[in-house]
This record gives sequence, structure tokens and C-alpha cells, in this order.
Amino acid sequence: MNMKERLYQIGKKAKEASLELALMEAKEKNKILRAMAKALLTNKQLILKANKADIAHAKRRVKSKAIIDRLSLSESRIRAMSSTMQEVAALEDHIGRVEEFVRRPNGLLIGKMRVPIGVIGIIYEARPNVTSDCIALCLKSGNCVILRGGSESVKSNLAIFNVLKKAAEREGLPEGAINFIDKTDRKVVDILLRMHEFIDLIIPRGGESLIKEVARKARIPVIKHYKGVCHVYVDEYADLNMAERIVVNAKVQRPGVCNAIETLLVHKDMAARYLPSVVKKLRQSGVEIRGCAETRKIIRDARRAKESDWYEEYLDLILAVKVVNSVEDAISHIRKYGSTHSDAIVTENYEYGMKFIREVDSACVYINSSTRFTDGNQFGKGAEIGISTDKIHARGPMGVCELTSYKYVIFGNGQIRK
Amino acid sequence: MNMKERLYQIGKKAKEASLELALMEAKEKNKILRAMAKALLTNKQLILKANKADIAHAKRRVKSKAIIDRLSLSESRIRAMSSTMQEVAALEDHIGRVEEFVRRPNGLLIGKMRVPIGVIGIIYEARPNVTSDCIALCLKSGNCVILRGGSESVKSNLAIFNVLKKAAEREGLPEGAINFIDKTDRKVVDILLRMHEFIDLIIPRGGESLIKEVARKARIPVIKHYKGVCHVYVDEYADLNMAERIVVNAKVQRPGVCNAIETLLVHKDMAARYLPSVVKKLRQSGVEIRGCAETRKIIRDARRAKESDWYEEYLDLILAVKVVNSVEDAISHIRKYGSTHSDAIVTENYEYGMKFIREVDSACVYINSSTRFTDGNQFGKGAEIGISTDKIHARGPMGVCELTSYKYVIFGNGQIRK
Repeated sequence: MNMKERLYQIGKKAKEASLELALMEAKEKNKILRAMAKALLTNKQLILKANKADIAHAKRRVKSKAIIDRLSLSESRIRAMSSTMQEVAALEDHIGRVEEFVRRPNGLLIGKMRVPIGVIGIIYEARPNVTSDCIALCLKSGNCVILRGGSESVKSNLAIFNVLKKAAEREGLPEGAINFIDKTDRKVVDILLRMHEFIDLIIPRGGESLIKEVARKARIPVIKHYKGVCHVYVDEYADLNMAERIVVNAKVQRPGVCNAIETLLVHKDMAARYLPSVVKKLRQSGVEIRGCAETRKIIRDARRAKESDWYEEYLDLILAVKVVNSVEDAISHIRKYGSTHSDAIVTENYEYGMKFIREVDSACVYINSSTRFTDGNQFGKGAEIGISTDKIHARGPMGVCELTSYKYVIFGNGQIRK
Repeated sequence: MNMKERLYQIGKKAKEASLELALMEAKEKNKILRAMAKALLTNKQLILKANKADIAHAKRRVKSKAIIDRLSLSESRIRAMSSTMQEVAALEDHIGRVEEFVRRPNGLLIGKMRVPIGVIGIIYEARPNVTSDCIALCLKSGNCVILRGGSESVKSNLAIFNVLKKAAEREGLPEGAINFIDKTDRKVVDILLRMHEFIDLIIPRGGESLIKEVARKARIPVIKHYKGVCHVYVDEYADLNMAERIVVNAKVQRPGVCNAIETLLVHKDMAARYLPSVVKKLRQSGVEIRGCAETRKIIRDARRAKESDWYEEYLDLILAVKVVNSVEDAISHIRKYGSTHSDAIVTENYEYGMKFIREVDSACVYINSSTRFTDGNQFGKGAEIGISTDKIHARGPMGVCELTSYKYVIFGNGQIRK
């Protein structure tokens, strides 16, 4: 059997298993999830051994330190993977819930019943925890999954997958429901992205180039999770203490993630009062400031921000700072340079706050809060499969409910159409 | 300027206009819709003249009678187009509504605000009323639209479009918000389907081959509206009078539409009692019966159904009939041969009814009702842009609400992430 035939067979089996999985009761799915959580802990040595081989291999190919870190597992990281599985088991099960139930004038009762999507393909890069997280979220939402991880972590992923599959099938998971493709050939992805007969949705998890390539090649719906060029706009009516806490938190608390801010916008009447103190705090945390001309009149030793800085997702302790003339200018800047991820205004002015909420078209728009809350868990959804920057199907943090679809269920007593 | 440059300029302008349109108040949009409705009536002679030219051209190319009919406008059809515009104006405006508003333990108030998708591309075939219907639904939901109709109706479409655009812009519609591409070259579609920078969603409206081609070529999310191979299953516990009314209605009331049934499934213990009478009624309405071997033992002069009949969307007065052994067999048949559009069970048995509802994975699943109700208007959504057979974003009848996305709006009072 060649690779294409093998992948199609996996797809076909997954599609068949999806019918069975869609009808599995919540308590059975949760039993499987808990068994998998346990199996991760019992088999941690096996997983760590595989991970060591991946790391050794990666180091020989002189990969960056950041990649080695993302790739590396430890006992505590495996415990975290296991905890996520337990948390997902404890989440609400959305499948079968009927929403928006209405009675029509002819007596028909019509509601929308949550159902799984079917088979979800995940194309991802280095982090091995994606393997267990995605299996947990897909299983919880009644979806089968086909995983294709990056070559750097293939041994770790395979070890995790084998441990989970064995534990899950012992507890009654239908055969073919979870799948991991251990061939790291690029062609595998190209084939998967065209298997629209068997795969209902593709979620790429990784850098922008991976996501762009997947979106370009896919013949299957893709939910994209692009970068976060997030902003805080400190308005002329901001509470300056609050604005300082929020900006420092949004930049410094975890700079390497997509919901951290990259650009600070400050109203011109606030700049002289606000910037010296917030920049001092930011610099104490090691943040480099890149400012516009107006900013550099106040923060004289700030590096000059180039046009390209406003588009940049630094994912690092760097902050671009721009002085703007009005809330309108702040909104225009965000529209032009932002990535429609997460943006915040700090203001005590009701009208400006509401204007910002209404006119900024980002997945998450904040008043008087750090952007760092854009996260499935923080939003009360439990674990997330990603943060969608798309507008079709799901936007913002995607939890288990966003991995479902619906069908209309209609209860009649003999209605016919006139 | 070549065609590609021209299309990109239209896309760019539409994207810009979409920012403005997204913020337009409901009453302004409704004023524009009503002005357009009126303009259709005032300019009906102009539209009918253009339509005559299309029909004359189509007849020279010896098109089928069905196509000529779909293409033809009349005063009453133009009145119907105008009424649809008025009805859409009267619908609820979903934009700006906040749903699922929650208070998190840290005091953040988080809700989902309905927003337009942005720019919607519609690729469609013969019917000129699609031009005005799609403009109405997209405008109501705050979306800009780029229309590309079939070559058969290009003069009619252009006449309708020009009338609507003039009336709309006089009432303040942003320039570039509605667009019609009058070049019928196939290449135009290929270019549009790749303009992901400017078009957020593609909805093809037409036959299966058009939809398949669009899905294959698009680099933009597509919501597909495939065929309807719909079933009624008459269970062993059916009320036979009700089952007769429902089956006759679902087949005969309007056989040429996607929510009419193509296959009747009958429980073996009911077949001898049920089939003779229902077949008589169906034949009185001109329906041809194609039966399985068991059916033909009862209806001896029925034509033999071939394997291919079970997959067929006749869109005509033909009904395939199969005798099955159980509700499980009926569900298996629907899973194998159906198109996940609309399927019904007729039964007085609660358990079997609920089993059918749960296990049939179609956009609309009915108990004791005709499938003909799968329709935006019948579901209380007003006009529809189509009936999605996809599971991503929208399933079943798509009204104005399904043409929206959402953003999270978060109201804080200084929250930072720990």
C-alpha cells in the first residue's frame, strides 16, 4: 500500500468511527479521558525516553534554543498534559444539547442540537503536548482526529499517542477514532489537505508560514490561528495607575504568547504624564522601547520605530509606542496594523470606551483590562484548541463547544406544507 | 487595467466599504432596502427589456425549457423580488447584539457581539432574482457583496443591479458596498476565488457541478449547498393516515426543490397495509414509483429501482421506495445514500422517534412532519441565502443571522492576569 492509500484508509476508518463516537455518552467519553490521563503518568519514562531521542536529534541539527525548549518534556510537563486531560473530562459535554428551541405558528417545535463536526485534522509543529491536548478536546467534543505533528518531535508524539490509544481503546474508544501519522514527509500534509471525503475541518497549529501553507493548499475548511499584533490604547481619560498596571501586565507577564501586546498607543495629552513612569516600569522588566517621533521627544533614548515595527509580532520583550491624536486615530492604527486578535482601550470615558468596543473589529475587544485574558480557560471554556483569527465558524478562543456543529431537530404532529 | 487588476480594485473598495457598512444603524440599512424595493417596481420595464434580450439569446443557443423558465422574469416575479426586499427590511437586525454575556470570577464581563462577516462573494447561475435576494440579505447583515452571475442572465442581472445600486447610493449606501461583475469569462471566477485578502466567504448558488468547482478552486472559506436526497421513513408504529399526508406532501407539493423527498422507506410490517393506498395517491399526482424487490411484491407494476436510484436527486415526480426491516436499517440507508439534508420519521413510538432524531446526522431531522419545512422562512428566519449541507459555520437554512460572525467584547475595571 502506498502512502496515499494508507492515508485514505485511515481517513475512511476515522469517518466510520466518527458515527459511533458521535453517539457515545458523556460519561463513557470522560472515562476514556481519565484513563488516558492516568496512562500518561504511568508511562512517563517511556515518553521521556522518546523525547530524549528527539532532543538529541534536534540538537545535532543545530536548532534554535527556543525550539529545543518547546520540544522538551519533563515530568512536570507530562503531569500538566495529564491534568489537562482530567480538566477536559470535567468540562460540560455540549453534544446533544438543544438550543434556541422555538414553537412555530403551525405547531412545529424546532431546535438546534449540538453535534460533533466529524473528523478533524490537526497539522502542528514542535510542542508534543499538542498531541494529548488535541486528542482530549476532539474526543470530548465527539470528534475523531487525525494528527500530523512536526518531524522534530515525531518520536515523542508517537510515544504519547501510543500510550493514549492503548488506554483509550481498552476503555472502549472505537478503533480508528484517534490517529497519528508518523511519516514526516511533506507530501503527507498535501494528501491530508485534499481528503475532503473524510476530513471535515483542518486546524493548523504553529507559525504563520505553516498556517499560510495549509490555507493555500487545503480543499477542506481551515480555521486559522494567525499572529497577535495586540494593542493597548491609553486614552486621554485613562486612569493612569490602571493604565500602567494593564500595559505592564499585557507586555511583560508572558511576552512570548499571541495575546501579549506589541504596541502601546497613547493619547497626545497623556503622553508626557504617562510615558516616563510606564517606560521606567517596563524597562525594569527588561523591555526595549521603540517609539514614534512624538514618543522620542519624551523618551529620548528610545530606539526609533520603523514602519515595519507597527506590523511586528515581537513575541519578545520589545514594545512599539506611538502617540496618537484621538480615539479615532487609535482605531485607525489598529485597523491598519493590527491582526484582529486582541485590543484594549483604557479609559474612564463611557462614550470613547463604547466607541472602541464597537469600531475595533478584533476577535477580542477590551475596555480597562489586560489583553492577556484572551484564552479559553480565562473565558470559562476550559482548555482551548487555539485562538481563531478567522470570522467563519469560530472566532477568538476555541474550546470544545467551538469544535461542534449543530443539526435542526423538528418535532411535529403531522404538519404538511401548504 | 486588466481583469485581475480591476477585480482586485473592486475587492479592495468592498473591503474598505465593509468597515463603514458594519457600523451602519439598522434603520439606515432598512431605509436603503425599502428604497431598493421601490426602485425595482419603478424600473420594471427596463428590467423586463433586459430580460427579453437574455431570453432571446438563450433561445438561440437552444437551452432547455427549464433553464429558460428559471431565467424568465415577469411583472409578478419582479413584484416578488421587491416584496423580498421589503420583508428583509422588516427582519430583526442581529448586528451589535450581545449574546452569552457572562461574569467571570475576576469580575470581567464577557459577551459575544454579533458583527458582519465582511465581504461575501456569491457565484450563481441562471435565476436573476438571486441578484436582488443576495444584495438584500448581505446588506441587512452588514456585509458587502460581490456578485458574479451566469452568462445566460447577465443583462437581466446587470439591469437589476444598476437599478438597486442607484437607489441604494442615493440613500447613503457606501460606494463599493455592492458589486456585480458583468464579465462572464470563467477566469473571473478563478480570480475571485483567490482574492482572500478582500473576500471573507464564498457562497456558490447553483447546481452540484458549480458548487464542486468552486469548492475545489477556492482559497476562501466556502459554504456549500449541495443536493437534497431526502427521505421519509414510515415506521411500524406510524399513524398511517398521517404517513400518507406527509409522504404525498413531501413528494408532490413542489417536487423540483431540494427539501422534497426522493426516497420512501417503509417498515416491512407496514408495507402491505401502507403502500397500496399511498402509491395510489402519489400516482394520482403523476408520481412514478421505483421499488425494491419487496416493494414490487406489493406494487407489482412499479419499475425496479436500481442501486443508482437510491443516490438520485430526481427533482421530479419520481419516488424510490424501499422496504426495510427496522428503524436501524432505515437509519443505515439514510447514512449510506442520503445527502445529510432533510430526513423524517413517521412514528407514534417515542423511543424510535428519539433514536432517529439522535442518530440521523442531517441538517434537519424531523419526527411526524413533512421535510418541505426546511426553509429559512418556515423556520422563522425570514428569507434565506441557501440551505447549507456543510457542518462548518452554518448548517441547514441560512438566514441573515448565519451571515454574521461575532467578536468577544470584554468589560473590565483594571483586571490583569496573574
